Amino acid sequence: MKPDFRYQQLEQTLLQGIEQQRWPPGTRLPSIRTLCQQHQLSKATVVHALQRLEARGLLEARPKSGYYVSHRPANPRLSNTRPATSVPAPQLKIDAPRAVNVSELFLDIMRRSAAFDLLPERSSDDLPPGIVILNRALGRALRRQRGDDFQYYDDPAGLPMLREQLAQQLQRRGCNLTNEQLCITSGCQHALFLALMASCQKGDVVAVEAPGFYGVLQLLQQLQLQAVEVPTSTTTGMDIDALEVILQRWPVRACVVAPAFATPGGALLPDNARQQLLNLAEQHNLAIIEDDIYADTAFNRVPDPLKARDLSGRVMLCSSFSKSLSRDLRLGWISGGRWHADILRLKLVTQLASSRYLQQGVADFLADGSYASHLRRQRYQLRQQRDQLLSVLSQWPGAPQFSAPDGGLALWLELGTDTTNPPHSPKRQINTLALYPEALAHGVIITPGPLFSASGQFTNAIRLSFAHAWTAPRRAALQRLSLLLNGSSTE
Amino acid sequence: MKPDFRYQQLEQTLLQGIEQQRWPPGTRLPSIRTLCQQHQLSKATVVHALQRLEARGLLEARPKSGYYVSHRPANPRLSNTRPATSVPAPQLKIDAPRAVNVSELFLDIMRRSAAFDLLPERSSDDLPPGIVILNRALGRALRRQRGDDFQYYDDPAGLPMLREQLAQQLQRRGCNLTNEQLCITSGCQHALFLALMASCQKGDVVAVEAPGFYGVLQLLQQLQLQAVEVPTSTTTGMDIDALEVILQRWPVRACVVAPAFATPGGALLPDNARQQLLNLAEQHNLAIIEDDIYADTAFNRVPDPLKARDLSGRVMLCSSFSKSLSRDLRLGWISGGRWHADILRLKLVTQLASSRYLQQGVADFLADGSYASHLRRQRYQLRQQRDQLLSVLSQWPGAPQFSAPDGGLALWLELGTDTTNPPHSPKRQINTLALYPEALAHGVIITPGPLFSASGQFTNAIRLSFAHAWTAPRRAALQRLSLLLNGSSTE
Repeated sequence: MKPDFRYQQLEQTLLQGIEQQRWPPGTRLPSIRTLCQQHQLSKATVVHALQRLEARGLLEARPKSGYYVSHRPANPRLSNTRPATSVPAPQLKIDAPRAVNVSELFLDIMRRSAAFDLLPERSSDDLPPGIVILNRALGRALRRQRGDDFQYYDDPAGLPMLREQLAQQLQRRGCNLTNEQLCITSGCQHALFLALMASCQKGDVVAVEAPGFYGVLQLLQQLQLQAVEVPTSTTTGMDIDALEVILQRWPVRACVVAPAFATPGGALLPDNARQQLLNLAEQHNLAIIEDDIYADTAFNRVPDPLKARDLSGRVMLCSSFSKSLSRDLRLGWISGGRWHADILRLKLVTQLASSRYLQQGVADFLADGSYASHLRRQRYQLRQQRDQLLSVLSQWPGAPQFSAPDGGLALWLELGTDTTNPPHSPKRQINTLALYPEALAHGVIITPGPLFSASGQFTNAIRLSFAHAWTAPRRAALQRLSLLLNGSSTE
Repeated sequence: MKPDFRYQQLEQTLLQGIEQQRWPPGTRLPSIRTLCQQHQLSKATVVHALQRLEARGLLEARPKSGYYVSHRPANPRLSNTRPATSVPAPQLKIDAPRAVNVSELFLDIMRRSAAFDLLPERSSDDLPPGIVILNRALGRALRRQRGDDFQYYDDPAGLPMLREQLAQQLQRRGCNLTNEQLCITSGCQHALFLALMASCQKGDVVAVEAPGFYGVLQLLQQLQLQAVEVPTSTTTGMDIDALEVILQRWPVRACVVAPAFATPGGALLPDNARQQLLNLAEQHNLAIIEDDIYADTAFNRVPDPLKARDLSGRVMLCSSFSKSLSRDLRLGWISGGRWHADILRLKLVTQLASSRYLQQGVADFLADGSYASHLRRQRYQLRQQRDQLLSVLSQWPGAPQFSAPDGGLALWLELGTDTTNPPHSPKRQINTLALYPEALAHGVIITPGPLFSASGQFTNAIRLSFAHAWTAPRRAALQRLSLLLNGSSTE
């Protein structure tokens, strides 16, 4: 079949060059400018072709350097290079902004409390020490209530002592922030909601990571905002060059980005990409909504947030304790930059205030160093659980690709490839969305790839979590999943 | 000055008839139909004139009966008739729907935690027994956490056991509801927000009580909905005849109504008005958003909600524990009728889930009868505090008008009258909005009347709360307020 579009022609030319080892693995391709001149093509067309090859795992984008031919390592865990994100190429083209329609499947997964657990089994074990100490702090805060405290709503911005503790944490991560610049929310999702409500109007275009957090897609749908998907590596995060192309093409109001150990793959956005992103935000008058929720799960150093480099109040930092401490606290925060006054008003209007004793208990837990101790224990545990999962996956047949994050709670697993565009090494096509009910029947709850995309991409991928201990039942569930993926579930 | 409009002409004719005792106090005016025929006027014009007289305290609307000449009792506490709601007449005409712009003042009042307290002084006394027992229940729920409970989000709809307890309460109030028809929220404001989000689109017209809850006005502003104000008695609630006129004139999507002890005046919507409202909702395809938050504070019988008569799923019942138990719980609920599925999704999208241990603690508190005991004690106390306030107000100079509610936390106080339309017995004009900073300088925080209106009506009124014990400092603050109102603060 003859390629119809100019980018497809270039893509095929480059593909041949790679196959014929004109550019062996590890070498740099000609620069975008050179390719434009050689082929008499626009920059957008060249970038498009390169991104399609990158998406097929054949190229790697190295920010501020260029595109390199992939090594395609057999075991990405042992490699420092990016695991091939062999996303079906025809799906990864940059689509125009679109309305979002989130799958009903998500509600089902949430109702099963299974977002981060392929086998939701509540252990009856004792709580980890961090949670015991947290609960004691909450209990003390309850017992310290006096007089008619219960008859007053808290300051809508939140308890000053808690905001002070959070400000100190952010100051240690390079942010020049005071407690006045923070507002307490009912979790990170609530913070993201406030950020989008404050910065966007119905119909506005919002750039999102693809694959990226489904909660953001749901918010866009709810607020009737349009999504434009930015190709995103599950190792190095959002492709800022692609974002630039998008910004030149469409009027984007805001960009939601998770630079630290983003779901689904645990990517960490490199330093230079961060600066490039902020520069673009300045040039294109963009609101940056930073989802910082996984930062504190870092296995090594907790990275500074984008907010630390935010000189013009464009970054709205959103976070919560749900990933690093407890999902049941329902306590998050936002630092809204130039939108902060609006956000405070929105918090008040949609919720009045947060619970004072709850904030007091958490503030005490932070102030006495218990949170820091908890994080140390939890990091060690998460790292072990990740290693155990990587070790199992590396034994799986079919050599699936997976990310190997240095933080977060999950990795991205790609299975087989798409047959609609003949792949390099043809495999069976797997549709993880179609696999969901089948897996469920086998007692395994998967989180299918398309949940992480506004356009239903990533049918061949799932997110696999290592948030929970690999008990014997969970190991068995993983084993059943492996059989399912290699068994009947092809189309 | 010669009246410009036909309704003004009728108003003056009727006024003369009342003054000349053509219709003595207590007698019924000719019916709307008769007045239409006699004066060759439309129904809307006649209703408008009657409502203006009603608003000036000269007439009383008795649902399904007609308009009666008021007795204007000297002490409304001792009277069963409605205290005169001497709202400035030119402001109470039925205005066209309008965008809402809530005063910054409200934020200030909220930041001072003063919405229900003219002198926010935290007592260092012991907690009331109900709160001690509640806190113990929450502490027990925390200690009962096991295993990795903290690693799972709760069902977005909320803990089944809590929903079951709430469903049982509503069943006892005549509702045919199961726990599946309830969704837990972060308070009643959050429930109202979800109800409006689910039933309205930007630009839609929403009918609200005037005076009514400021939180609703803020929501309308935030969601870019238009408000149309329905004249509302602080004794008998929303004027459903006026609502009918409005529904005939404008395309109203939803109506927010608080039938049980509504803020600001503590009105209770009579039975026949309730049925009339539901009939209108059916005829005009209206969503009814019922704010039920004050019902459990009833001094006598807790009235059945509108929801109990809702045969077609048009009523969204919204409530929380903030008025009847604790402002600090931040726990509410909604039963969303035909919009319930959307509401569940919205709850999930904006907040994921609620805290499980918190819900468990409250469910235990409900299940063992502690809530019922708490309500008994609280009702006795609130009733005493109301009586003490009424007793003080009846001694105030200038014979101000005030409501005497049988539930809720506050009453409505009207001071002087408006001079723009010459009143019956001319008094000084008081602007409570202008008075706010002056009162603040004297250590008194008032809740000015205009906060309760989208059009800035009720400048001569304030809401006075009896939610707090009348300690010596609060009595002194009330005394200072009385002096201010009768002293320098005229215009």
